[in-house]
Amino acid sequence: MSAVPSVSYSITVRLEVPAGGTSVSRLTTAVEQAGGAITALDVTASGHERLQIDVTCAARDTTHADQLVQVMASVEGVTIGKVSDRTFLMHLGGKIQMETKHPIRNRDDLSMIYTPGVARVCTAIAKNPEDARRLTIKRNSIAVITDGSAVLGLGNIGPQAALPVMEGKAALFKRFAGIDAWPLCLDTQDTDEIIAVAKAVAPGFAGINLEDISAPRCFEVEARLRECLDIPVFHDDQHGTAIVVLAALLNALRVVGKRLEDVRIVMSGAGAAGTAIIKLLLHAGARDIVVADIAGVVHRDREGITGQLAWLAEHTNALGVTGSLKDAVRGADVFIGVSAPGVIDADDVAAMAEQSIVFALANPEPEIDPAEATRYAAVVATGRSDFPNQINNVLAFPGVFRGLLDARSNEITPPMLLAAARALASVVTDDELNAAYITPSVFNPDVHTTVARAVRLAAGGPEELPVETEVAL
Amino acid sequence: MSAVPSVSYSITVRLEVPAGGTSVSRLTTAVEQAGGAITALDVTASGHERLQIDVTCAARDTTHADQLVQVMASVEGVTIGKVSDRTFLMHLGGKIQMETKHPIRNRDDLSMIYTPGVARVCTAIAKNPEDARRLTIKRNSIAVITDGSAVLGLGNIGPQAALPVMEGKAALFKRFAGIDAWPLCLDTQDTDEIIAVAKAVAPGFAGINLEDISAPRCFEVEARLRECLDIPVFHDDQHGTAIVVLAALLNALRVVGKRLEDVRIVMSGAGAAGTAIIKLLLHAGARDIVVADIAGVVHRDREGITGQLAWLAEHTNALGVTGSLKDAVRGADVFIGVSAPGVIDADDVAAMAEQSIVFALANPEPEIDPAEATRYAAVVATGRSDFPNQINNVLAFPGVFRGLLDARSNEITPPMLLAAARALASVVTDDELNAAYITPSVFNPDVHTTVARAVRLAAGGPEELPVETEVAL
Repeated sequence: MSAVPSVSYSITVRLEVPAGGTSVSRLTTAVEQAGGAITALDVTASGHERLQIDVTCAARDTTHADQLVQVMASVEGVTIGKVSDRTFLMHLGGKIQMETKHPIRNRDDLSMIYTPGVARVCTAIAKNPEDARRLTIKRNSIAVITDGSAVLGLGNIGPQAALPVMEGKAALFKRFAGIDAWPLCLDTQDTDEIIAVAKAVAPGFAGINLEDISAPRCFEVEARLRECLDIPVFHDDQHGTAIVVLAALLNALRVVGKRLEDVRIVMSGAGAAGTAIIKLLLHAGARDIVVADIAGVVHRDREGITGQLAWLAEHTNALGVTGSLKDAVRGADVFIGVSAPGVIDADDVAAMAEQSIVFALANPEPEIDPAEATRYAAVVATGRSDFPNQINNVLAFPGVFRGLLDARSNEITPPMLLAAARALASVVTDDELNAAYITPSVFNPDVHTTVARAVRLAAGGPEELPVETEVAL
Repeated sequence: MSAVPSVSYSITVRLEVPAGGTSVSRLTTAVEQAGGAITALDVTASGHERLQIDVTCAARDTTHADQLVQVMASVEGVTIGKVSDRTFLMHLGGKIQMETKHPIRNRDDLSMIYTPGVARVCTAIAKNPEDARRLTIKRNSIAVITDGSAVLGLGNIGPQAALPVMEGKAALFKRFAGIDAWPLCLDTQDTDEIIAVAKAVAPGFAGINLEDISAPRCFEVEARLRECLDIPVFHDDQHGTAIVVLAALLNALRVVGKRLEDVRIVMSGAGAAGTAIIKLLLHAGARDIVVADIAGVVHRDREGITGQLAWLAEHTNALGVTGSLKDAVRGADVFIGVSAPGVIDADDVAAMAEQSIVFALANPEPEIDPAEATRYAAVVATGRSDFPNQINNVLAFPGVFRGLLDARSNEITPPMLLAAARALASVVTDDELNAAYITPSVFNPDVHTTVARAVRLAAGGPEELPVETEVAL
């Protein structure tokens, strides 16, 4: 629940009031006194005695929206009609669609787009498979694949309920990077089956974005797909998060004047995102990282650690720290939380090193209230949009895939992820940089072009993109 | 190879000629004398001494296009520049794309289309899965699935080379029925794997159009998918063809004044299309059908018949005809060929009953030259666009799926196919109907709305489609 009205809980109420008099002002006063924020008021029909008005207002949550409707209904003379939910309205029939690029006006168009003309294009690709990247949608298409097992904070809600998120993701790919993404929400949560499906559909795509697949299956799915496919496979919950965290951390370190090589980083959470962040931090040069999960600090001698945890024990905590998360945080320069609400408090932040950095990324409720953390930390970031320094994957994944596609890359490697993070950090100039501005806005177009270019070059793509307008016979 | 220039072999030649003089007229004359058809001539740059001209012309085939370029080059004073192929140009980067339906201009838009707002929509669908058809792309999306094993007349060219056909198909779905289709070209030709993939991706689609999958796998794939899925599965090569053939036959019978129940129908070809046509003909009331394949007439006592052939032997040829195709054709009222070029000749057609009907649908070369067939048959149809009465699946599949989607149908049944065929036939009015006009134009918008309405009603959909613009809170 958000403390202030959010447009994501926005309703439009069609109602009638008596013409003349003070009904409208009483109505708006009532809504505002009840904590609603009116964003539009349209008279949609007018008569001598009655006015029909559409009142649009933002609420804090669904219960609050219901309350606002009750408040409006209680104003004398007001009759409530239809109540619409703006977020649901935007979802009617889905948020994306397929479009043809060329008009099909007559038989001539048909004979080029479809039979018989299309046969020549098929034959050309059969002879030279690389032409698929030139003459088909493969050039600019990626599949957004989920099994619906770990959707947002909602958990295992299944493929159909995951579809709105995947559509949203596809919409963001188009909006920020011009990429044609199509969601594939799979009716299976079996690792082998997910892999088989992704492998089978790969010929029509230039990349695969895995999304909201729960750990530890997500690791195996990604690793095995990368082994067998000739297109890049990117699990956004891991690597998108890692890129944005590293970029934000690089800028936070600029603010406090410390170096990544020197700082002690303590991470809460050893899941998919946490592990990916650590791998990228190590690749970027971090040397002193301590990870804690629900059972405390991860170290080599801890009992019963296998899989990813064993890997983490091997590659972090060189100094052999043991104990609880709170023990580890004491004296640390950087705290990164990708875990659960409330695992640290203000006293823990106070016990960190001077000029400390706190990234509390649990969503929707952070590891520590950012207002509390700000009392002692020099830089604080969260995953929330209603607080400065939002760590938001949308800053990374569109540009990353744009770069991969433009380079016609067959893979995605740690140097590409690192290039993306550094490029993203660089978008915030020295003049702009401050403790409350370590990440740029997703609506800053430089974000996506800068990331795309860095990834393209890291993937061996060209300095300049060719303009392809002619096809030799 | 087509005998006349076709726009599907259309090239644009950028060339320079001396300004003034007769170069241009000599150029156009030379092209036309060489059998090319000039469709456009644009002066793209002009100087005192030289003109730059883009000459667009249709050729008969690729070799002919090369010849036309040579002919232009040989005209005195002409310098040839870039030669572009219009069909290939239209395929650059693919023919379809994904588009967002709503602008994403600011954080408010983002908070409704993506997090946090999207979570409420996901939750709603998790609670009530039927809402996926209202609040996601599932309402209007179908998957076009192929394994690339039987693409056009090109055969087993694989998934990537099949992609241009599937994109074209998707484009036609949008153009003629407003449907969002996305191609999935599978990197497997294993029946079980194709089924597993189609089953896995089903949650995000309201229908599956199987395409260009070779027989006999296509039968099993379709049958097993229909058993396990709650969305309609339609193999267009079978049922699309069957619908259009039946519609055309109903109109041909109107022309010659015969009834489907009374005529003897001889079919050449017992593959996927042939079998589907026969099933629909039987469902429509045909009683006397004889099928022949490469080994002659199919009858109960023929040795070694299994699978589909056994089914055909059981359900056709009640009179126990034996012998060759040519034997069977003698005295028949209707010939339908979905087989190979040249299997019958003019003498065979002459030996048919009075007022005979010949559908020679092998592509690109029909079972008999239609000009030959017309000497003796009352009505002749082919699959070709350069002859009257084209049997073209585009007449059926867009409307069929529009109807299925509008009815939110969980299946597709023979009565729906029959309704589609009758509706398609009805689009040709009594005033329009004649021996050279038994199928309407695909550009006649009534075709698709009429078919869609008939299928929707047959699928139990509503008389009128509701207009859905508001969402209750």
